[in-house]
Amino acid sequence: MGWLNDETGLDRVAANHVALTPLSHLNRAAAVFPDREALVYGERRWSYRDYHADVSRFAGALAALGVAPGDVVATVIPNLPAQAMAHFAVPAAGAVLNTINTRLEPDTVSFILAHGGAKVVLVDTQFLPMVEQAVAALDTPAPRIVEVPDPQAGYPETGRHLTFDALLAMGAADTPWIMPTDEWESLALNYTSGTTGRPKGVVCHHRGSYLMTMGTVVSWRMTLYPRLLTIVPLFHCNSWNHVWMIPVLGGCVVCCRDITAKAIYDAIADEQVGFFGGAPIVLNMIVNARPEERRAFDHKIEIFTAGAPPAAVTLGKIEELGFNVTHVYGLTETYGHVTECTWNDGVWDGLDHDARATLKARQGVAMPMMEHITVMDENMVETPADGTTQGEIMMRGNSVMKGYYRNPEATREALRGGYFHSGDLAVRHPDGYLQIVDRAKDIIISGGENVSSVEIEGALMHHPDVSLCAVVAKPDDKWGEVPCAFVELKPGATGDEAAMIAFVKSRLAGFKTPKRVIFIELPKTSTGKIQKFALRETAKAL
Amino acid sequence: MGWLNDETGLDRVAANHVALTPLSHLNRAAAVFPDREALVYGERRWSYRDYHADVSRFAGALAALGVAPGDVVATVIPNLPAQAMAHFAVPAAGAVLNTINTRLEPDTVSFILAHGGAKVVLVDTQFLPMVEQAVAALDTPAPRIVEVPDPQAGYPETGRHLTFDALLAMGAADTPWIMPTDEWESLALNYTSGTTGRPKGVVCHHRGSYLMTMGTVVSWRMTLYPRLLTIVPLFHCNSWNHVWMIPVLGGCVVCCRDITAKAIYDAIADEQVGFFGGAPIVLNMIVNARPEERRAFDHKIEIFTAGAPPAAVTLGKIEELGFNVTHVYGLTETYGHVTECTWNDGVWDGLDHDARATLKARQGVAMPMMEHITVMDENMVETPADGTTQGEIMMRGNSVMKGYYRNPEATREALRGGYFHSGDLAVRHPDGYLQIVDRAKDIIISGGENVSSVEIEGALMHHPDVSLCAVVAKPDDKWGEVPCAFVELKPGATGDEAAMIAFVKSRLAGFKTPKRVIFIELPKTSTGKIQKFALRETAKAL
Repeated sequence: MGWLNDETGLDRVAANHVALTPLSHLNRAAAVFPDREALVYGERRWSYRDYHADVSRFAGALAALGVAPGDVVATVIPNLPAQAMAHFAVPAAGAVLNTINTRLEPDTVSFILAHGGAKVVLVDTQFLPMVEQAVAALDTPAPRIVEVPDPQAGYPETGRHLTFDALLAMGAADTPWIMPTDEWESLALNYTSGTTGRPKGVVCHHRGSYLMTMGTVVSWRMTLYPRLLTIVPLFHCNSWNHVWMIPVLGGCVVCCRDITAKAIYDAIADEQVGFFGGAPIVLNMIVNARPEERRAFDHKIEIFTAGAPPAAVTLGKIEELGFNVTHVYGLTETYGHVTECTWNDGVWDGLDHDARATLKARQGVAMPMMEHITVMDENMVETPADGTTQGEIMMRGNSVMKGYYRNPEATREALRGGYFHSGDLAVRHPDGYLQIVDRAKDIIISGGENVSSVEIEGALMHHPDVSLCAVVAKPDDKWGEVPCAFVELKPGATGDEAAMIAFVKSRLAGFKTPKRVIFIELPKTSTGKIQKFALRETAKAL
Repeated sequence: MGWLNDETGLDRVAANHVALTPLSHLNRAAAVFPDREALVYGERRWSYRDYHADVSRFAGALAALGVAPGDVVATVIPNLPAQAMAHFAVPAAGAVLNTINTRLEPDTVSFILAHGGAKVVLVDTQFLPMVEQAVAALDTPAPRIVEVPDPQAGYPETGRHLTFDALLAMGAADTPWIMPTDEWESLALNYTSGTTGRPKGVVCHHRGSYLMTMGTVVSWRMTLYPRLLTIVPLFHCNSWNHVWMIPVLGGCVVCCRDITAKAIYDAIADEQVGFFGGAPIVLNMIVNARPEERRAFDHKIEIFTAGAPPAAVTLGKIEELGFNVTHVYGLTETYGHVTECTWNDGVWDGLDHDARATLKARQGVAMPMMEHITVMDENMVETPADGTTQGEIMMRGNSVMKGYYRNPEATREALRGGYFHSGDLAVRHPDGYLQIVDRAKDIIISGGENVSSVEIEGALMHHPDVSLCAVVAKPDDKWGEVPCAFVELKPGATGDEAAMIAFVKSRLAGFKTPKRVIFIELPKTSTGKIQKFALRETAKAL
């Protein structure tokens, strides 16, 4: 406790204490990098001067619409410039940003709009009918709809609402920003994808986001002027805070409406993007692209991947193509990624392909903005770093949410004992790296043995015909539960259940071998997560 | 002001709020990079596991000596491992680190020990007689002396005091660290070099240092695992916080007792150092090294230089040798550098050598941890960005000191109006980059015209015989003041006053031409700053 004997006159004043906020990054970028390219979508390009001016107009216009500090402003927009700008303009108006998943059904959007209490919702024209339906179903005050048309993608304005361009025209380019005076003020309200039950509203603060951006620069080994492609949706943990981060580096955000192999290769070749985040399915998309979708490039692309460990086969192929993949892990409650499988330069470089893939499958170690991430047992005692003892991943640090909106009980439960309880089961390897064995609720208990669905999925992913897979518990009279696999095949592959079971058996213990393998297209949530609860229902009925 | 309508249950708790401190970097490094090399001095090498263990022993031992939270612990040590460890161990004991310049005279050290009230002072054997004399002269309670011998440099222990190794043996490797609970707690007490009058004690806080380290990573374009040579003394703004920064990157600090051209080239070739900070005199040392002092290397070295703009000739030569120089600027009151002449990649790359040198002479733009750095007139109105209107550099941000210890009046004066007043006069160029024209007190007023001593010095530095120079005001009956130049020549050069005056006259207006040029070895402060006050006295007597 470093309080000097005499601290007279050493208090916080305006000169030496500024609330941490990602808004500072864009303010500084407009001053330091005014002419550098900041934002690109197709033929449209913004310098930092222009980006800052449009954000200021946007903030001023929100105030003109009646948005007051502390109000919620929602968006239902793909990864387009209006969505990127909302990340700065909504907080610059003192308001809280509630990005809503564009793939949700009207009922859930109604729930979110009512629960969050948005005053305004900005909606891409493609999703307007869905949102209009959601708004019509509200029995709480309806938010004002602002339409964001995208004529270059075939979505011209409908004429039914105030448009985004008309909104911008309502605000001045020199509108002063309402900066937080306390860095604990709320910045964003992000609803979880809710694999079961109603989504919960995760409240993020300015401080956490600022620190997330600074820590990500270190972890991703970024230097000045990176070019980032927005693949992870901005409605998914604010794209892991990447759009808030880029201005601190004077970099450029390249927007992409639809994620296709062609769009990714084009952005690499034409816009020189060097960084993006994406689920393993994006890696598959790149590896399996058709020849006419591919483009030549000669720079290294850095990918953060999360959601599931990257499959060894995919890793091998994508690295040959010039991509480096780093596995990261986090949750909406932690602003996105908070652990990273940090590569140990000079020590791991000489390892063979399988050894590298095995290392890269681990979720890794705490990123710099987190104080402590570890695995604990039910008594919150750290598990031994033996690679086998399972416990729950617990985390403490500045990129943990404030809590769940209007749900103090769930907040208390999630943050009890000084740590955020992730609900993910993991082991600690002897070198301290974490590896997830399963979601607590996805573990399969067969004959009294804990069986990790993730481990079986990892084995299945080695099979050359498997594109995606999920393993769940199937009730069994003899064993209690047995593993049941659902497999999405690669184009052209035909599934042979017995051969697939034999393949897994050659790699894993008998009790870990699925008793059934079903070949289907896997059901996914709106953020692309596989809906295991639906598969469990299917498995029960088999 | 982003307070949601309902903030129930969304308060700071242990899981989501951790006080920012550079101590976290070393804690994390010990967990994430335990086996990577952290610290090197000659043949001695520490991994992060060992570094953390020795720091813990050190912290435990300080407590055993009676150091309590809030106490001051001083050091008088060159850039050696014990000094690096003190940067973590002293705050880990809850105490405040007071690094004292090894080049000071006993009288000033007595003043600092009395004013800061150090309980313990760790002293390198070389400086022991000086510190013993300073302690003997105290009429306040004397600090306990701990001797830090350096036998490999020819300074074995004297036997008169507890030694550093014996101190470490008093503490346990698993001593728990006293982490700050409030990031505003004091971390360091750094006395200014005091070109006139008694030094002032600048108090730094944990938050400012943490943010300084994260911002420096961005500005210096550092990625994981850098190797840093400690040239800027750790008693000078804690070496610009670099030793606190390195663990967040899993990098290595290479210690160097005496800064010589040979030591620098050896560290580059043998230890693969890639980064260091240093005054322009260090650049000269590298450029002017004798052939037998030079070593071959094939990696790029990044240098931060501050104190004076790097001379064009030096820049040209050092860049050919494989070094990239970035000009930075800051003060003890700002933890070190807070502006940087950020290179505008892709835009400035094609410029010729002179144009590059002219750009690099500017102090530049705010680093990421600073909110706003600009130039203002005496009414605190921002000056126009016209490259000519002069004003004072003012800065606001999280890497500004808490204030001056036991001097609330000076603190209030320095931080008045929401900005730290630097005392440096500068212009803003049209692209927003700042350039210092002079210290406020160094400006020469000749015939009513403001003459920048820095501008005349810049002209002199173009002369091939000039190694270092300083220009001050000389009282003059007709003009009030006239410029008077003091020049330190390169080895072998002979000074010709008339020719030197003619050289400057060919580059600058007549009233900016020095009326006298004196060839001497320049007097310098303990941190290597030229003592202009002494030169002014000399000029008066001419």
